[in-house]
Amino acid sequence: MTRASAQDWVDDLLAGDRRTLARLITRVENRTPDSHAALARLYPHTGRAYLVGITGAPGTGKSTVVNALTRTLREREQTVGIIAVDPTSPFSGGAVLGDRIRMVDLAGDRGVFIRSMANRGSLGGLAATTGDVARVLDAAGFDVILIETVGAGQSEVDIARTAYTTIVVDAPGMGDDVQAIKAGILEIADILVVNKADRPGAENTVRALRAMLELGHRLRTNLHHGELLARPASPDASIYDFWQVPILKTIATEGEGLGALADAIERHRAYLADSGLLVERQRAGIEAELAARLREALLDQLIRQRTPAALEELIERVLARQLDPGSAVRMLMDGSA
Amino acid sequence: MTRASAQDWVDDLLAGDRRTLARLITRVENRTPDSHAALARLYPHTGRAYLVGITGAPGTGKSTVVNALTRTLREREQTVGIIAVDPTSPFSGGAVLGDRIRMVDLAGDRGVFIRSMANRGSLGGLAATTGDVARVLDAAGFDVILIETVGAGQSEVDIARTAYTTIVVDAPGMGDDVQAIKAGILEIADILVVNKADRPGAENTVRALRAMLELGHRLRTNLHHGELLARPASPDASIYDFWQVPILKTIATEGEGLGALADAIERHRAYLADSGLLVERQRAGIEAELAARLREALLDQLIRQRTPAALEELIERVLARQLDPGSAVRMLMDGSA
Repeated sequence: MTRASAQDWVDDLLAGDRRTLARLITRVENRTPDSHAALARLYPHTGRAYLVGITGAPGTGKSTVVNALTRTLREREQTVGIIAVDPTSPFSGGAVLGDRIRMVDLAGDRGVFIRSMANRGSLGGLAATTGDVARVLDAAGFDVILIETVGAGQSEVDIARTAYTTIVVDAPGMGDDVQAIKAGILEIADILVVNKADRPGAENTVRALRAMLELGHRLRTNLHHGELLARPASPDASIYDFWQVPILKTIATEGEGLGALADAIERHRAYLADSGLLVERQRAGIEAELAARLREALLDQLIRQRTPAALEELIERVLARQLDPGSAVRMLMDGSA
Repeated sequence: MTRASAQDWVDDLLAGDRRTLARLITRVENRTPDSHAALARLYPHTGRAYLVGITGAPGTGKSTVVNALTRTLREREQTVGIIAVDPTSPFSGGAVLGDRIRMVDLAGDRGVFIRSMANRGSLGGLAATTGDVARVLDAAGFDVILIETVGAGQSEVDIARTAYTTIVVDAPGMGDDVQAIKAGILEIADILVVNKADRPGAENTVRALRAMLELGHRLRTNLHHGELLARPASPDASIYDFWQVPILKTIATEGEGLGALADAIERHRAYLADSGLLVERQRAGIEAELAARLREALLDQLIRQRTPAALEELIERVLARQLDPGSAVRMLMDGSA
């Protein structure tokens, strides 16, 4: 892609060309140097899509929720881009199978575009790539972008920072120490869903979640702290209490409860827009993204300024316990190594 | 802590003082500036402990496996340090409860030291802190250090890089899409454990894991790629095939199968030492740690070189879609912003 052809790509993307969309996402995922020019040119055309994060422990059926929610949004005349992120598969596998299952389910609908992403390289890299893929879908005109993440961990927190509304999916009978997971993941939830609500114990799960919410596991504030700027207090701190996290029941395999879920997303969207929190979340997301990208770029720069032999010697000295890692970092920073 | 008192701390630690151990770990966790001096001074006294990572999906009972394994190692006259990392709780909670449960179980044994760590700040920070806490326990003379992580994700991969032997715990009847987790996590396993082996379906779980191993979900090689040095090929690539990942059955609540697990750890340790892979893994771990620390230090340096107003203006321009994030990063890197 030259500069001229980057513009061609963006023109084709904005015109709704499907093949360009798929190809550009692949280039963005592979971080080809020429994809940067395309991302820079399509960026002014982003900002219209609404980004929704969906996460939850394995076994809750959240992929089925994503598919059923997509059908509901389609009935409401909204186009949907789905990014299924699987950070548990650092090298290969996982994501591809899920992709095929979805394809069968939602195939042939031009108002839906699905992309599965396995983990490439560092987690910071995955969050950055997810954000860029969302921008391509945004510029391509998709109304809602669903970002689905598997598992529970820091990756969810990072990727949830990209989304405006985060849905956490739970299900009855998820075992003993899943409770530990919930404590952490509850803190990022704007909407809670108890899926498989026809199973025994669904009411218990709802009650347990409500009790945890009341216990004060609501610290979304902290999620949007600044990574570049030390802000004294985010508006989240004072305003956030006005949003009551709803707990909704769904049976995604039967398509039950998805209308209420789509409604709750709309309500949360209106709440964020009216309170000014939407812009706050976008600002915090951009700040986190810039910080993550700078970390990688600065390390690359430092490595390029050294010879491999010099770096290798330093590593060997740390390995031989002649130099501790903290001192090695300081030597690299002040130029004495 | 002045330099002199940092040496006092290290002297007391090496002499086996328990209170110094607990206090120093707290300082390392909080990353107090004076803890750096202590870490530098104790570093030459590290390298004797054997680091074992234990991970697995929620509900597999891996905390019970850690406790039962600890009792077995104690019977074999080995002292055990346990670091329980809970990256699912980014702000608070989780880890503390687990800590109390363990305390009751293993209380009063001076040959055991347990520390739970919730996620503080970035994941890179958590992996670095885990490594430093392991060093304090190493210098304090613990023979084996068990690093337990909850959930499944990039955090496990990062923390597993710290360990020499990684154990992945599974259990029968973990639900449908847990399989997706397994695909990713299997790749980091040196030893597989099917816990709750008295439950229905245990043989199916063993068979499924064996089938997945045979399908070639064994790419440990990639886990130990260089982050600072582009190495053409790791020795892992050619030698690793000689280690057959064992699948062991345990009933941790009854203490069954833990002797075989302790034996397997010993066999893997001997294998790593004889093949030269132990040094390779240590080298790759140091490299990853230096890279993670440099990322943070370099970003801090860049932020200090700017005024908050300049950074804020840049963020506002990205938010207003006047500037794309990639261009913003390049401007910060070349000094034009």
